[in-house]
Amino acid sequence: MTGLGVTKSFAGWASELLATDIPAHVHQIAHRAMLDTLGAMLAGGAHQDIKKLAGIWPASNGACDLATGGRATAETAALINGGAAHFWDFDDTSYTGIMHGSAVIFPVVLALAQEKGASEEEARTAFVIGSEITYVLADICTHQHYFRGWWSTATCGLVGAAAAAARLLGCDSNQICQAIGLAAAASGGAKSVFGTHAKPYLVGEAAQRAIMIARFVASGLSGPDDGIEGQTGFLHLLNNDVEDLQQIETLGRRWRLADPGLLIKLYPVCSAAHAATEEIARQTFHAGLSPDDIDMIRVEVPKLVRISLVHDHPKTPAQAQFSLPFVAACAVINGAVRLQDLNVDVIQSASIQAVMAKVQIHEAADLSTPEARQRFPESARVRIILKDQTEQTGFCGEAYGMPEKPLSDIDFLKKFQGCLAFANCALSKQNIFETDFLLFASELCAQVEKLPSTQSET
Amino acid sequence: MTGLGVTKSFAGWASELLATDIPAHVHQIAHRAMLDTLGAMLAGGAHQDIKKLAGIWPASNGACDLATGGRATAETAALINGGAAHFWDFDDTSYTGIMHGSAVIFPVVLALAQEKGASEEEARTAFVIGSEITYVLADICTHQHYFRGWWSTATCGLVGAAAAAARLLGCDSNQICQAIGLAAAASGGAKSVFGTHAKPYLVGEAAQRAIMIARFVASGLSGPDDGIEGQTGFLHLLNNDVEDLQQIETLGRRWRLADPGLLIKLYPVCSAAHAATEEIARQTFHAGLSPDDIDMIRVEVPKLVRISLVHDHPKTPAQAQFSLPFVAACAVINGAVRLQDLNVDVIQSASIQAVMAKVQIHEAADLSTPEARQRFPESARVRIILKDQTEQTGFCGEAYGMPEKPLSDIDFLKKFQGCLAFANCALSKQNIFETDFLLFASELCAQVEKLPSTQSET
Repeated sequence: MTGLGVTKSFAGWASELLATDIPAHVHQIAHRAMLDTLGAMLAGGAHQDIKKLAGIWPASNGACDLATGGRATAETAALINGGAAHFWDFDDTSYTGIMHGSAVIFPVVLALAQEKGASEEEARTAFVIGSEITYVLADICTHQHYFRGWWSTATCGLVGAAAAAARLLGCDSNQICQAIGLAAAASGGAKSVFGTHAKPYLVGEAAQRAIMIARFVASGLSGPDDGIEGQTGFLHLLNNDVEDLQQIETLGRRWRLADPGLLIKLYPVCSAAHAATEEIARQTFHAGLSPDDIDMIRVEVPKLVRISLVHDHPKTPAQAQFSLPFVAACAVINGAVRLQDLNVDVIQSASIQAVMAKVQIHEAADLSTPEARQRFPESARVRIILKDQTEQTGFCGEAYGMPEKPLSDIDFLKKFQGCLAFANCALSKQNIFETDFLLFASELCAQVEKLPSTQSET
Repeated sequence: MTGLGVTKSFAGWASELLATDIPAHVHQIAHRAMLDTLGAMLAGGAHQDIKKLAGIWPASNGACDLATGGRATAETAALINGGAAHFWDFDDTSYTGIMHGSAVIFPVVLALAQEKGASEEEARTAFVIGSEITYVLADICTHQHYFRGWWSTATCGLVGAAAAAARLLGCDSNQICQAIGLAAAASGGAKSVFGTHAKPYLVGEAAQRAIMIARFVASGLSGPDDGIEGQTGFLHLLNNDVEDLQQIETLGRRWRLADPGLLIKLYPVCSAAHAATEEIARQTFHAGLSPDDIDMIRVEVPKLVRISLVHDHPKTPAQAQFSLPFVAACAVINGAVRLQDLNVDVIQSASIQAVMAKVQIHEAADLSTPEARQRFPESARVRIILKDQTEQTGFCGEAYGMPEKPLSDIDFLKKFQGCLAFANCALSKQNIFETDFLLFASELCAQVEKLPSTQSET
């Protein structure tokens, strides 16, 4: 691709890629990522705050399903479904760029595939295109993009999602280039939204804008064709000219959906809390210990985990998602953090508070060395001291669900079923891995629509 | 306002300001800015590219008028009308931040005032609030924001427009704070869109997003309350921590709509071409000279003008708007650059090309000194050499329409009428300065709606 700009390189690739160019295992990962995001989206749609969001832009007689029930235009569906997909922070995470790419790209692909009547394969190919462009752009930006304060989910996500949308609208290479360029020129999104409803909102807004940008260029109106690398491009404005341009060479050679892959979350909390939750659950709940048996839970974590999990006395569900004592209590009592635990009443309950009081947190230097950080960035060492003063210890380097430890089919299905149950949807098929995804998504959304209206008003 | 964050300061002011707090001359300037933007918007709506934009998101039975005819939701109206308002680059310009604030804020105010049935005074007060916040934020960012590559119209404009929208939706101070904070967190917009349709699109998109953000916070959903000054705020991410925070102290004391004021453009071209157009027209067309009398037109300009007017051989209307030879030819032949001149046929016509060939451009050192730049940033010295080798010279320091040389009522009306005529609208009232603005705007948009359909399809 030497000699071509980054924007054009992305566009050329996005317009030419065939489904058969994508390795089978990448197709499979994409299918699972879409399924997993669908589950997270339906669970998010069941929360009153996402219903409130959907109430601002009510359902119309559009072609696209809403996680909250009803149908709308693709733009509105992407907005609501994007907000729903990220609402619980239960959607997948990529350590490329530190982001939630699927939550932006999936609602775009779902809505336009429904609108256009695209095939399963076309939808999945567009999802792969959107994901790979998002993650390669993030790699070009390096991790400094996120650490500086940009929320890469919104910034890089918009660019990849616009490419996916333009592809599904049948744009040619030149139009896709302008869609990517305009998305890069329009891009923004700051981490200042963390802890507010604006965080999932920006996911939905990015999905909506991606569709609008794609329709804009598809109509023949023009956008910039150097929006990423140009003189006033994304890399200059949103990354202060820091750029690892060689990453573009790996586009379509190294598939980032597989390498480094995605974390499929088992618990709807910050990824930094996953290893601790798993190890504590293993030593207590799954070992048959009751809260009363425990005198103290000492959790040692790397610095990286400690700076993420800062709410030792959480008051709200959003704080609880970043609280080691809270997840420890859930692990002891229920063996997991579940969607229904992210609730003020649960957080304040005596049983949870009693266990939280037994948790001690320590930053461990040996877990924070460069080597440890490379191998196990978000690990946890757990020591449980029982009432009889016996001790037990264990270490979890990386949580189940991380790319190196992918969920088994059964556990993936369990998570998916849990999301559906939370949204009062029933699962009609057991083999979700081989079903036609688009029909399946419509069927599940239609169930939400048919729920009694009292459900919609909670 | 000491001790308060910038975001909160803006919000407190926006929620408490009464119409009676605004000096009469500022009300008057705001009224004219809205009228002028309405004219530019109707003229923009008559162009096929804005009709194409409107065709992507068709008119519905919403409450708000479209520059292209029909009615739609406030969100869609803001999108289409914002694009239309800036389409010809004929809308007002503020040298605070170097931007087109009215083109973003006016469509927001118009749409929400129509939706809510707001009074003339409420609408104008919201326009003043949106404008002052936009321009004070731009002053806090200093000119480096624009020169770095951010398009301040989209970046600062979104923030002020969100405040105006939240005010019109009846939000309290806390909600307005979150609207401003969320707008600041969502903000983006690069100058890489220059020369493409994406430039007016970003104006419309900012207007649409401002309304969406305001509805979001009005519904009770939360945004960040430190989106401007916070650790990952606008000033950090979009301005690399360059900030002149003292500017916030002047909010509501120095009214930037009046000081430094707005350029109301007489010609639909880059502001850098206005002085030259005026001086050449004065010496030729208005003096009775014909193109055949002229041997050479020598234009001396400051460096600032030369770096803006770079298209000496324009091929497209967008290039012609940044071309000294082209505006010179229009000035000689028609005494002005008119909307109908921004047309490929006109640009390529033999008569225009013949005059363009006589134009010589020179950067003049004495017009580029710091003193000259301060007093006359975009001046022109014009020397006309006639066929009989006699010469005439003249200098225009600042064009008619600049804040120090405001248009007379008659000339303002002429421009407005010209825009309406271009859109095939008829002006039913002569005293546009005292009419109820909102009724007037609806009446004019209704005329567009009633145009024969052939007009809509050009």
